[in-house]
Amino acid sequence: MPKANAFYAQSGGVTPVINASACGVLEAAAKRKDAIGKVYAGRNGIVGALREDLIDTSKETKAAIRGLLTTPAGAFGSCRYKLRSLEDSRAEYERLIAVFQAHNIRYFFYNGGGDSADTCLKVSQLSQKLGYDLQAIHIPKTIDNDLPCTDNSPGFGSVAKYVAISTREAALDVASMCETSTKVFILEVMGRHAGWIAGASCLAETEASEAPHVILFPEIAFDEKKFLAKVQKTVDRCGYCVIVASEGAQTADGRFLSDSGARDAFGHAQLGGLAPTLANLIKSRLGYKYHWAVSDYLQRAARHIASQTDVDQAYAVGEAAVEMALAGKNAVMPTIVRDPSKRYRWRIGEASLKQVANREKRVPRKFISRDGFGVSPLGHAYFEPLVQGEAYPRYKGGMPIYTTLKNLPVTKRLAQGFELQL
Amino acid sequence: MPKANAFYAQSGGVTPVINASACGVLEAAAKRKDAIGKVYAGRNGIVGALREDLIDTSKETKAAIRGLLTTPAGAFGSCRYKLRSLEDSRAEYERLIAVFQAHNIRYFFYNGGGDSADTCLKVSQLSQKLGYDLQAIHIPKTIDNDLPCTDNSPGFGSVAKYVAISTREAALDVASMCETSTKVFILEVMGRHAGWIAGASCLAETEASEAPHVILFPEIAFDEKKFLAKVQKTVDRCGYCVIVASEGAQTADGRFLSDSGARDAFGHAQLGGLAPTLANLIKSRLGYKYHWAVSDYLQRAARHIASQTDVDQAYAVGEAAVEMALAGKNAVMPTIVRDPSKRYRWRIGEASLKQVANREKRVPRKFISRDGFGVSPLGHAYFEPLVQGEAYPRYKGGMPIYTTLKNLPVTKRLAQGFELQL
Repeated sequence: MPKANAFYAQSGGVTPVINASACGVLEAAAKRKDAIGKVYAGRNGIVGALREDLIDTSKETKAAIRGLLTTPAGAFGSCRYKLRSLEDSRAEYERLIAVFQAHNIRYFFYNGGGDSADTCLKVSQLSQKLGYDLQAIHIPKTIDNDLPCTDNSPGFGSVAKYVAISTREAALDVASMCETSTKVFILEVMGRHAGWIAGASCLAETEASEAPHVILFPEIAFDEKKFLAKVQKTVDRCGYCVIVASEGAQTADGRFLSDSGARDAFGHAQLGGLAPTLANLIKSRLGYKYHWAVSDYLQRAARHIASQTDVDQAYAVGEAAVEMALAGKNAVMPTIVRDPSKRYRWRIGEASLKQVANREKRVPRKFISRDGFGVSPLGHAYFEPLVQGEAYPRYKGGMPIYTTLKNLPVTKRLAQGFELQL
Repeated sequence: MPKANAFYAQSGGVTPVINASACGVLEAAAKRKDAIGKVYAGRNGIVGALREDLIDTSKETKAAIRGLLTTPAGAFGSCRYKLRSLEDSRAEYERLIAVFQAHNIRYFFYNGGGDSADTCLKVSQLSQKLGYDLQAIHIPKTIDNDLPCTDNSPGFGSVAKYVAISTREAALDVASMCETSTKVFILEVMGRHAGWIAGASCLAETEASEAPHVILFPEIAFDEKKFLAKVQKTVDRCGYCVIVASEGAQTADGRFLSDSGARDAFGHAQLGGLAPTLANLIKSRLGYKYHWAVSDYLQRAARHIASQTDVDQAYAVGEAAVEMALAGKNAVMPTIVRDPSKRYRWRIGEASLKQVANREKRVPRKFISRDGFGVSPLGHAYFEPLVQGEAYPRYKGGMPIYTTLKNLPVTKRLAQGFELQL
């Protein structure tokens, strides 16, 4: 009987270190050739499984696999494609199992956020119902840091580092110019429902500078009057004001300050444009000259300044997923556990997908300062270790070397294709 | 007779490496204590001279001065304050000379762009008219790279590197997601009248990816029809399209695609919001899902990924300015000269400020590809060496260490203050 194969797919928005998790999976599987045959990757995530469009990772060199450790974005392609409930979308789940069966895939590694954890759980449940022997392990990934059951999510630490450094740098810029020019600078960062990324900008503070002076969290209802008063007071006192705003900043009635009306495949509002909205508000009410930046994909692709801690953890959850699968586990996710020691130490834990799926972990109130515009000492202590260490990529000619895989297809075995509802 | 003192000031928008030029000035002056007494810096640029608000740089430690080499923005404060013509604003020029005389300042080092070169020249001319012995040396600085008489301007190489890396990283992100999500990504970069920064994004190209697929230069009149056709063709062929747009992109009649109506102190239009404008155009005409980023101050403060070549050159022009002053020169600017060798080599040259002042060097047509949306091989060859080398700052706790100076004031000697027209 041939050895069982594994399937690995990347899901949802990519991160600077999701490929480091892929590297962890592939290198761990390579060490256990006694138990795992090939690792097939889904081309463009789960869509590749549905289409039976699999990538044979055994065709890549060891060096290319190692290169994933320092390459941002999704090396096999990712997707925004949500499988609905088992009832609504049974054909899709059955198709997945059919593809897995055709390629003797018994290990399913799904690398994504909360929605993907839910999909992973459902695949596990359906395979059991159908009597198909499959172990489904979810590998955590999200820059938003909103997965429950884990101290933090791989991907977040690097984005936190990028945002904190960018805030420190831009604050120095504004400080140098404020006497005769820009008084207010606004940086819009990602974070639809949770303000973890915005919060991490608190690390920009130094003894010499309080910037960022104002952080807008989705967790704290936006109060225009309080906000403008805080900005004005800050400019009066410091000469300038640096604001870091989470794209998910919203009013008490849950209205996003900047809802473009567009929706993504998961039905979430597609946000953006908050920074200019705030800038116009400040200009019209307070009259200050402003500048604003929207870092958008730049923040989540910025592998050039990834956190070493984040890279290590992303690799470790990939590696642990393989170990868990080989230990016979199913419907679980490796987690990051923070040891309660003074010096930061972490280890890999484990959570049941039932506890993970479809739950968002927001920034706790105790991590936010009393006035709602900053981060408390407890919050600081949470963020600090996650950005430790600079995991620089190698450079050639002044530009980072990022790996491109061959991504050769696996020969299809099923007669039928599958029509996706994209 | 006491030794002559020097005055150094930073002017206009700051850069990741303007402090490296300051470091060059201060370290070179420290070596020539036989000829130069103290170096006073203007607090907030030339405004500090007008107000007699001088900083005594001799109070800083050697380590702090060295720290300027790796610190972005303007360590003494910069300003947007343009001295008008000698006729319109004679009182200001006379005030400068009065302050210089009161502090026995005989060397004037002005670190800025084209407007500042003009100011520097006028200060030199007026001091001669008034019979005050002063040597005025302009130290080139602008991220826009639009100074004439020099192969490139210190500050540009680092912004070029940041933008090229960011483009490469964001392109990988879009490529991973385009099957089911974002098809078009737009990065808006600085460059009001010259597309040097946008052009440098061409370095993001790799064997595996043509991104950026479209570059918008202020030098090429924006043609909506051609632009949309190029975007559509690119998405058809590659699955996605990455656009890097100069904020100064404009139509044939000179109308900026995104003119907010605001004007800065120099009377220049304050731009911003081009990226969302282009995104809406693409969405409404072609229907593609988009994302956009505006890097704004982030790009010009990004010391964390500065080009070593740029840092070296910024330091060298500061050092050369001191040497030129001591060699008796006046109304000149050290320049970067590119040797016509195959391997990139540069040296310091010299230009008369009459040749430099108020002239903008735009991207030559031969550096731009035939269709106007890319960079020619000649352009590539120009950009490539300027981003070479990674001049990383030191880090502590995962965050870069940037220097804060004491910036202690020099005791005023003039009875009268001076009212600025801010």
